[in-house]
Amino acid sequence: MAAEVGPTVTHGGDMNTPANLMDLLEEPFPDVNTYEDFHTIDWLREKSRDTDRHRKIASKRKESFWELIKSLLDAWSGWLVMLLIGLLSGALAGVIDLAVDWMTDLKEGVCLSMPWYSHEQCCWTSNETTFEDRDKCPEWQTWAELMTGHAEGAGAYLLNYFLYVLWALFFSFLAVSLVRVFAPYACGSGIPEIKTILSGFIIRGYLGKWTLLIKTVTLVLAVSSGLSLGKEGPLVHVACCCGNLFSSLFSKYSKNEGKRREVLSAAAAAGVSVAFGAPIGGVLFSLEEVSYYFPLKTLWRSFFAALVAAFTLRSINPFGNSRLVLFYVEYHTPWYMAELVPFILLGVFGGIWGALFIRANIAWCRRRKTTRLGRYPVLEVIVVTAITAVVAFPNPYTRRSTSQLISELFNDCGVLESSRLCDYINDFNITRPVDDIPDRPAGLGVYTALWQLALALVFKIVITIFTFGMKIPSGLFIPSMAVGAIVGRIVGVGVEQMAYHHHDWIIFKSWCRLGADCVTPGLYAMVGAAACLGGVTRMTVSLVVIMFELTGGLEYIVPLMAAAVTSKWVGDAFGREGIYEAHIQLNGYPFLDVKDEFTHRTLATDVMHPRRGEAPLALLTMDSTMVEDVEELIKETDYNGFPVVVSRESERLIGFVQRKDLTLAIKNARQKQEGVVSSSVVYFTEDLPQLPPSCPQPLNLRRILNLSPFTVTDHTPMETVVDIFRKLGLRQCLVTRSGRLLGIITKKDVLRHMAQMMNQDPDSIMFN
Amino acid sequence: MAAEVGPTVTHGGDMNTPANLMDLLEEPFPDVNTYEDFHTIDWLREKSRDTDRHRKIASKRKESFWELIKSLLDAWSGWLVMLLIGLLSGALAGVIDLAVDWMTDLKEGVCLSMPWYSHEQCCWTSNETTFEDRDKCPEWQTWAELMTGHAEGAGAYLLNYFLYVLWALFFSFLAVSLVRVFAPYACGSGIPEIKTILSGFIIRGYLGKWTLLIKTVTLVLAVSSGLSLGKEGPLVHVACCCGNLFSSLFSKYSKNEGKRREVLSAAAAAGVSVAFGAPIGGVLFSLEEVSYYFPLKTLWRSFFAALVAAFTLRSINPFGNSRLVLFYVEYHTPWYMAELVPFILLGVFGGIWGALFIRANIAWCRRRKTTRLGRYPVLEVIVVTAITAVVAFPNPYTRRSTSQLISELFNDCGVLESSRLCDYINDFNITRPVDDIPDRPAGLGVYTALWQLALALVFKIVITIFTFGMKIPSGLFIPSMAVGAIVGRIVGVGVEQMAYHHHDWIIFKSWCRLGADCVTPGLYAMVGAAACLGGVTRMTVSLVVIMFELTGGLEYIVPLMAAAVTSKWVGDAFGREGIYEAHIQLNGYPFLDVKDEFTHRTLATDVMHPRRGEAPLALLTMDSTMVEDVEELIKETDYNGFPVVVSRESERLIGFVQRKDLTLAIKNARQKQEGVVSSSVVYFTEDLPQLPPSCPQPLNLRRILNLSPFTVTDHTPMETVVDIFRKLGLRQCLVTRSGRLLGIITKKDVLRHMAQMMNQDPDSIMFN
Repeated sequence: MAAEVGPTVTHGGDMNTPANLMDLLEEPFPDVNTYEDFHTIDWLREKSRDTDRHRKIASKRKESFWELIKSLLDAWSGWLVMLLIGLLSGALAGVIDLAVDWMTDLKEGVCLSMPWYSHEQCCWTSNETTFEDRDKCPEWQTWAELMTGHAEGAGAYLLNYFLYVLWALFFSFLAVSLVRVFAPYACGSGIPEIKTILSGFIIRGYLGKWTLLIKTVTLVLAVSSGLSLGKEGPLVHVACCCGNLFSSLFSKYSKNEGKRREVLSAAAAAGVSVAFGAPIGGVLFSLEEVSYYFPLKTLWRSFFAALVAAFTLRSINPFGNSRLVLFYVEYHTPWYMAELVPFILLGVFGGIWGALFIRANIAWCRRRKTTRLGRYPVLEVIVVTAITAVVAFPNPYTRRSTSQLISELFNDCGVLESSRLCDYINDFNITRPVDDIPDRPAGLGVYTALWQLALALVFKIVITIFTFGMKIPSGLFIPSMAVGAIVGRIVGVGVEQMAYHHHDWIIFKSWCRLGADCVTPGLYAMVGAAACLGGVTRMTVSLVVIMFELTGGLEYIVPLMAAAVTSKWVGDAFGREGIYEAHIQLNGYPFLDVKDEFTHRTLATDVMHPRRGEAPLALLTMDSTMVEDVEELIKETDYNGFPVVVSRESERLIGFVQRKDLTLAIKNARQKQEGVVSSSVVYFTEDLPQLPPSCPQPLNLRRILNLSPFTVTDHTPMETVVDIFRKLGLRQCLVTRSGRLLGIITKKDVLRHMAQMMNQDPDSIMFN
Repeated sequence: MAAEVGPTVTHGGDMNTPANLMDLLEEPFPDVNTYEDFHTIDWLREKSRDTDRHRKIASKRKESFWELIKSLLDAWSGWLVMLLIGLLSGALAGVIDLAVDWMTDLKEGVCLSMPWYSHEQCCWTSNETTFEDRDKCPEWQTWAELMTGHAEGAGAYLLNYFLYVLWALFFSFLAVSLVRVFAPYACGSGIPEIKTILSGFIIRGYLGKWTLLIKTVTLVLAVSSGLSLGKEGPLVHVACCCGNLFSSLFSKYSKNEGKRREVLSAAAAAGVSVAFGAPIGGVLFSLEEVSYYFPLKTLWRSFFAALVAAFTLRSINPFGNSRLVLFYVEYHTPWYMAELVPFILLGVFGGIWGALFIRANIAWCRRRKTTRLGRYPVLEVIVVTAITAVVAFPNPYTRRSTSQLISELFNDCGVLESSRLCDYINDFNITRPVDDIPDRPAGLGVYTALWQLALALVFKIVITIFTFGMKIPSGLFIPSMAVGAIVGRIVGVGVEQMAYHHHDWIIFKSWCRLGADCVTPGLYAMVGAAACLGGVTRMTVSLVVIMFELTGGLEYIVPLMAAAVTSKWVGDAFGREGIYEAHIQLNGYPFLDVKDEFTHRTLATDVMHPRRGEAPLALLTMDSTMVEDVEELIKETDYNGFPVVVSRESERLIGFVQRKDLTLAIKNARQKQEGVVSSSVVYFTEDLPQLPPSCPQPLNLRRILNLSPFTVTDHTPMETVVDIFRKLGLRQCLVTRSGRLLGIITKKDVLRHMAQMMNQDPDSIMFN
């Protein structure tokens, strides 16, 4: 396998170089073609290396039966990795779901007979079978009940309140401490970093085993602590860690950063698939939102991984309903054209809220990054948890977990629904089948619920701004959806009651007769959730597809689409970036977004280095640089590589050599090759240069010379250059004019130029 | 708008050239930047032109309110085009569905009260309300009944038979004649050509108004004639024609071949969306199978177009069931792990059948292309129709339309099912709810049906090979699905009966008790259909998603996925191409498939022209070529363009000039610019070259010079070159070595090289 590392970049080279030199240089290069931390990979080179590997295997295949088996194993390893990722991420998601359920309920009480059961599971096994008492089984006791024997009264309430806050603080303290001590990369949602990694950036350890373990554990703790955060984003991170873990088992993926990213793209799809129980939505999420390079092969494999993950999760059955999806809903009423007006208004709300949220959150995160606040992450988490828990407990809609809240808001009010949101005044004179409940006037319970929801809304809006970005695992999907669902439900009930009380108004006349079911408030909640999620993340298709998979019917795609597209447009009007892009920019990662269009009229010559007045380009000549000069160049500059020209006079480009390869090759030659001293001439040509006989033994480095560097002319418009960088995944590109080398453009230069053109601070781009 | 055409390629140019020269050259260039028929477009150039347009609009926006409105209109025109495409293609699909229904039934009889009603519609309005007599209402009369008064008997049968064949011949004769006379491009499925067009090829008229009209009409005729073909592929063509029609209304799309292709990609999605009632599947089909360049913006817009189309179709409601989908099914039994064995076997069958079908069909089409057979397309259609009709009539499963057949095969046998396939022996001692019918022994009807299905299978397999590729509109989806559905249903019934009669066998014991419902033969039919469709087209994800949208449940995704992936793997083992790629190759279109991996070890120098021994590269010099030399070069060669170098000695490249621009510029200069004669010097530099005073007025052509031609070095591996051509959509690429121009590689060269490496005939690539 060692033999595979070297020869890839220099196709021309290894056809011509004498064999003994090849061997000398090839063997001891363990680190050639790896990348340093916080650097960008070269996609073309990775691809080329993979093709080389393929060729090698294909040519060996005919040699023996064992090689044939090996080549088949190699071909199938991609699917095997997908299977493993699906199994592990599905299993982890199931475990997380179960643990979160149990620990969330632990804040309120405990199951006496089976302490490891959540409230719901506890009461399943109970003998209490009447439907109304479902939640009140004797086995389940609140802490006050258990400790004092009283379930009611102010004392019991306060005791429960106190213990609720205490548990929450304990969970969040544990979470933030674990993150601080063991895996600092486990914090946040992880999606901005994963987007950057998939675009070709190296962050070592971000997807490591420790991160996987700690993120899984702390995610459970963070969600259980009742903070305003979700598990969906972090689940994508967890799935990507699984992807990284399994890809390191196969040299095909572990030794090729490009191929590894294909696996990670698929893992991201599996993550969303288990987060929502939406495999197709997961694949589209990976395609639309996360991935950078997404060939068709990855599409198929992502789909496979997403399916396996979803079915593994279903076998674990954490929701206890044999359903894949997180919020399963079934509506029985169609929607009417006129309802598009409130749906679009919800979209407008979602867009505005999303834009405001992004601004507020980024402002707060920037403050955290730049002021002393950032030095006390544990304290910050403790304070936010305390505030959250203290404010959340009195309100039944914030006390429970956010996903339960969303689930209730999405639900249609059936006959058996015991929620307070379904406290309508029944007219028992009308008897109808179960599915077809007519619109009814709202009862007192509904109005109380609406007030509490409004308070919950304000609280969620404010606290989420401060929660997202703290040093614990925190996803944004669930809080955004909760905000949207609350607004949607309130609007929905409003429209429903208006239609009931004023069914003779012209707008309602055609579709809302008295005693008929015409408005589904749950659908409004779902549309609102889609709108807010769309406003924050700026997803459209994948969002609609995820929602479609939740309802399982094409019927409601148009309302969802209307809301999602409106919210994107409105949000884009305030600022084109979604929350993930905003966080990428905040962190200064070198991310060349596929969605940004570069429309300025600059040329390559305006962007390249050296500019007018700068020091001349650091370059090597074909056959006249000495070893010591090279060493000095390496010491004095921090460039990733150097162009090689025929001579300093003609400036005709012949290739490009990587800094790392150069360092290694010289170090290696000095150690192992006799006669190589500081004054030896380094040459990149095929034949030995003509040197005076007194010269010491020259050093041939053609082996590490990339003979096909990417060049553009100085007149190339920057939009084309940006396009080339994006599509081919280059690290750098050389600029020439009529065959003469003029300068170099790196990915960082491109990003800085783009930031400058958009009137942003170019120095915010920190990495290359 | 005329001003927009010229200046795009030469950014550098129009900053430096004197204004008067610019005006002189710019104005009368109506054809600059258009492409010739059967040529490849330059994606980078198109993109660059679009950015220029954007820039122009953005800079004008601030000038006046009217310009602001215009810029908003321009920004929204994309969505408007999508809306129009969705509406028109949905409406056309609805009309086609209704017309096909009516005309298919017309072959057998007529509705007396309402002659424009199909059999089903006729009997809806009938007073006959008993369920069993649904199909036998007095208003509907067969031709024999109408003409002789006898509905039964050998005479009536023969008369019906005769008229059935006659109608079929009439329809197909009409179809082929219309295609021959008015729109030769309306034949076939259109998908291979659309794939080629979307990859950047120009076929004028292929998506024109005439093609749209004639294809719509002849599609109805061809499907009604009872030939073994479907309407799905042609519907994609029809939708793309709609896309082309509407894109010609907006200069943004009509004047930019790249942008136009974005619209066409979305239109293809709308086409599949209405063909199956599967909008998400349609988008994925466009992404996976048809499109070449599919940015995220196109994803959103495709989704929008697909949704609008699907809802337009639903408003027309051609299937009379308020369902979007062509074959709506609902199954009530889960599937068991052990059933994966027959599902995978169905996948194997699908793969083998697909591969064999492709070989046989391509062999037959090649024969048609190369022998005298091709000269009699009308006769061919007539003969095939006659054979089809004669063989099809006696068998009830081939007499009806293929989509009705598939629908029946997919259906689960409910209590109310009157099909002969559901003729099971009922045990009336067991009373159960409607949904839960236990497995029962098959009755005589089932066995008869199986025999007839087996005969229908053989017939379909044979006749489809000869039908696909004839000079009438013909889709392959429905016949493939029919083949698979028949096999699947037969296998399904087999498994079901085995499980019923041998429920004590070990494999059945765990999941198939007596008196329980454990095998759904309809599901087998669906899996079989997916397998065969997958074998022929090699789709995977989009296929599974389309099928998922038909059933509307995630439940059956695993069986479908298993069959689709198996069939793809098995099919790929016999030959990597799907039917569409095979037809593209047969026709010699220059299609650079994204899926093909190029793994050979050749370099750019092996592919470029001129090769060793060939005439030197046709090139122009910067400031020393005379007009007459240029004219001679144009006359003597047929290259699309010429590189421009500093001098023939240094061979340093400065740019590339298009043949077409050159011809026009010289013609134009000779007419309008004084002093330009044959001996005038053509120069491409910024400043006037130093010429002896006796020289005539020189001609500045810097305006048309592309100063940023794409170059690679001669050592660049071909895999990288292929990647660059694919991702950037180049037409040609220049090859240099240390700044010297060595040669040129065109898309045709790349394709020919790839064909050669795969041991195919390189001359099969006919266009550039």
